[in-house]
Amino acid sequence: MKKSLGPKSLIYPAPVLVVGSYDSSGRPNLMTAAWGGICCSNPPSITISLRENRYTFHNIMKTKGFTVNIPSEEYVEEADYVGMVSGKDEDKFQVTGLTEEKAEFVDAPSVKEFPVVLECRLSDTHEVGVHTQFIGTIVDVKAEESVLDQNGLPLLEKVKPIIYAPESYTYYGTGRLMGAAFSIGDKFTK
Amino acid sequence: MKKSLGPKSLIYPAPVLVVGSYDSSGRPNLMTAAWGGICCSNPPSITISLRENRYTFHNIMKTKGFTVNIPSEEYVEEADYVGMVSGKDEDKFQVTGLTEEKAEFVDAPSVKEFPVVLECRLSDTHEVGVHTQFIGTIVDVKAEESVLDQNGLPLLEKVKPIIYAPESYTYYGTGRLMGAAFSIGDKFTK
Repeated sequence: MKKSLGPKSLIYPAPVLVVGSYDSSGRPNLMTAAWGGICCSNPPSITISLRENRYTFHNIMKTKGFTVNIPSEEYVEEADYVGMVSGKDEDKFQVTGLTEEKAEFVDAPSVKEFPVVLECRLSDTHEVGVHTQFIGTIVDVKAEESVLDQNGLPLLEKVKPIIYAPESYTYYGTGRLMGAAFSIGDKFTK
Repeated sequence: MKKSLGPKSLIYPAPVLVVGSYDSSGRPNLMTAAWGGICCSNPPSITISLRENRYTFHNIMKTKGFTVNIPSEEYVEEADYVGMVSGKDEDKFQVTGLTEEKAEFVDAPSVKEFPVVLECRLSDTHEVGVHTQFIGTIVDVKAEESVLDQNGLPLLEKVKPIIYAPESYTYYGTGRLMGAAFSIGDKFTK
């Protein structure tokens, strides 16, 4: 039996995305976003929702570029911290000890220690309620060689991304491999 | 050392969202979407990207409502199947044996067996490349009582959502509780 919980911004899983940007003086910043995801396959595009009071909001508006860095489980403390304080007040690379690597194709910093990085060029913005969606064209994906499989694609069990549970404000790890998509449901096509 | 993989629509974790809609003759349909997520806290809103050749695309354009159903691990085969075939050709509720429950606040069907359902009213659409973002205001969340914690919120380890790994086309389960958000990173604020 289902119970009505009212209107809530709940989804499972929500991602833990660490957005990298430069401010107008070239100082790098990081912030954590859970409101985002892929929004198009062609051209590969991502959407990230930010509020206007975020430092990152104004950085991206100026530079038109950002990175989306996927932290692995071992960096859950760093990923949490960069979502707690503002880049106006803190140099988050310095405080966490994470290493800045300049993106190759966009004007934004990325996190050397995180296994997967998306380099994104701002292509559009849309206002939705108190948030603005930043649509970014993914111009390159960079991944640590140690997380790649024999086809050169990241393996989720090596990336070990973090899952966020909204409303209960908790982080979880990734579980076991369950099967192949477009295949495990084949039994219903017979 | 990172390797460049080129532009790819990759993110970890991607969700497995089963979208419910009615066609113009009132027949219920389900489809699986991985390109989506929460896009606003106030009003609570979700974005789902669909291609125009999807049956669900035209259903939602007509009814202005849809549900987002979160399958638990035990329904990974059903969730995969409903993303493999078109509702033009198949009655996916009938084939899978999933039970249709009419949503309370929008004109859309939901899946009784899935632990969490979002009832969404179409508020806007945006074109992004070959996809269209459907922005839905979440007018209600419904969850099985058995997955709720003492505060009346869904517990992720009871919901057991499925994680999708794009490009490698694989499904994973949810892992262990790692800690509390806005807390586990506290050590860096000292």
